[in-house]
Amino acid sequence: MNELRLNLVTQRWVIIASERAKRPNELISQTDTDPRHLPPWDADCPFCPGNEELDLEVARWPETGPWRVRVVRNRYPAVHEGDELVVRAHGAYRSLPAIGYHEILVETPLHNTCTALEPMEDFVHVLAMFQARGRAIAQDERMEQIIYFKNHGPRAGASLPHPHAQLIALPIVPADIRARNDQARRHYEKTGRCALCVMLEQERADDLRVIARGKHFTAFVLFAASSPFHTWIAPHRHGSHFTDISRDELEDLAAVLHRVLRKLYVGVNNPDFNYIIRSAPISQGVNDYLHWYVTIVPRVTRSAGFELGSDIFINPTIPEESAAFLRAVDEGGTR
Amino acid sequence: MNELRLNLVTQRWVIIASERAKRPNELISQTDTDPRHLPPWDADCPFCPGNEELDLEVARWPETGPWRVRVVRNRYPAVHEGDELVVRAHGAYRSLPAIGYHEILVETPLHNTCTALEPMEDFVHVLAMFQARGRAIAQDERMEQIIYFKNHGPRAGASLPHPHAQLIALPIVPADIRARNDQARRHYEKTGRCALCVMLEQERADDLRVIARGKHFTAFVLFAASSPFHTWIAPHRHGSHFTDISRDELEDLAAVLHRVLRKLYVGVNNPDFNYIIRSAPISQGVNDYLHWYVTIVPRVTRSAGFELGSDIFINPTIPEESAAFLRAVDEGGTR
Repeated sequence: MNELRLNLVTQRWVIIASERAKRPNELISQTDTDPRHLPPWDADCPFCPGNEELDLEVARWPETGPWRVRVVRNRYPAVHEGDELVVRAHGAYRSLPAIGYHEILVETPLHNTCTALEPMEDFVHVLAMFQARGRAIAQDERMEQIIYFKNHGPRAGASLPHPHAQLIALPIVPADIRARNDQARRHYEKTGRCALCVMLEQERADDLRVIARGKHFTAFVLFAASSPFHTWIAPHRHGSHFTDISRDELEDLAAVLHRVLRKLYVGVNNPDFNYIIRSAPISQGVNDYLHWYVTIVPRVTRSAGFELGSDIFINPTIPEESAAFLRAVDEGGTR
Repeated sequence: MNELRLNLVTQRWVIIASERAKRPNELISQTDTDPRHLPPWDADCPFCPGNEELDLEVARWPETGPWRVRVVRNRYPAVHEGDELVVRAHGAYRSLPAIGYHEILVETPLHNTCTALEPMEDFVHVLAMFQARGRAIAQDERMEQIIYFKNHGPRAGASLPHPHAQLIALPIVPADIRARNDQARRHYEKTGRCALCVMLEQERADDLRVIARGKHFTAFVLFAASSPFHTWIAPHRHGSHFTDISRDELEDLAAVLHRVLRKLYVGVNNPDFNYIIRSAPISQGVNDYLHWYVTIVPRVTRSAGFELGSDIFINPTIPEESAAFLRAVDEGGTR
């Protein structure tokens, strides 16, 4: 019998199609997408050393000598800096100039690699750059929400293969994020507890879906995973903002996220994926009900009209089986 | 300058990337997907005449002689009929057996056609079947929401080419639909008017984005279209349920929807698309703020991490230009 499962934090249902469920190994990517088959340097790649668009540079590490991580403004940004935030009326409709920040984090000077293959030290610096930029952008009073994300592979929306992550800062809080926050607040008002704290407690105790444990973070496949291998990484210490974590916590997050990405790379054969850091709206102080986390969504299935019409996803795998599969993958191994 | 535009009904923002906007004709599909290149009958297709799985049949039209439209239960349903709706606890988590209805509307006996090429009489019967099944399923007191939809082409999630639409009935109201309904109610409470009635009035008066006008329905590209050619078809008479419309209205809806699909087929070269009929939850009586409609989403762009993290879409076309393009397409023409 298929099951409807409810996500305790988002209150969204998913359908777990367990009756004809696919085994996790049926979802191993059959395409050869190994980045190591690319050249290490590409004359046409704007992120390769020597091709840097210096007028777009925001930050680099190290600051002297050859860089290993860079932040640049997007040459073709979705949102722009430096305009006035004035609402425009079109009859009953409203628009705003698309003010904001759209930045690229170039993760490495190497063209033919991917996050799972990067040295841990560089990856810590990618997350540290996210944090530093998040803190800086939060000073711009027009900004309301920062989305930190990565697109890996064409099915995840990546157009350039050179490893990079992105952030987009917006002058509004998206309706979807407002709805998630309202949901979290309702849970807190009803039960006196943060829903994600409860979820973490249960996952760590049950140990049915945990795939990686750090000192400060736990990674687990969701009970109500909306797609195969859909994973959250949550901080044990309740906090609303990713930007508020300590250096020690940041290093642990990098280690746990890297382990999960390694498991996908080794075990599922480098699938396309997105990860997103879901941090609270900027103007929202730390509170007892918003608990930030990272979500990792491998793109191994496709959404259709039902998903568009209901926002309910049909997951053709059993989360506990996906978790057992990923747990068993030796992330130190090679493919 | 790119623009953030707000959808008056859903209160969702989209980014209109007008700065480097694509012209509508740059989005014409380059793949040859003409269904007329398929055989008219396929021995392996479960929807072709002679291959009917009669144990799954729910309805057919005409009832005697060769059928032209059929409704069948999905052989591999996402949700199942005939079980008890009992909540199961897994610690703090909850699940339900996936009770419901998952039915397929086979639109035609012909394998090598598509909705845009079907005779209007058959298409009216497809929508009439949707309506009849919606009314029947509403009698099942366990059901809360029906999603009526169509997947056309692989990018829209279709796995079989034989023209078919689907419905899935669920024992819950999805969180996303609840949030949309709350939004509509808030607009009504604040202004005393249904937001979609206001939108229709403005679209019909402005005539900037209208692409097809019927006696009872108007089709328009959204001011805040989340993707190229994203279109709504709304009934002029305020109503909450698709199932409540008259035969005369149904025929007009079929004509307007068919015209829009013809315009896409002829003008955009048969792009993959989904359409969804967004009707109110079953248990919700007709009310002044929920206004049902049809949404048509051609799948010509892809969502990435930003869309997953914000539910804000970046539309690389200007809605008014998409509308002008589709308005100019002669839907009576051929490709």
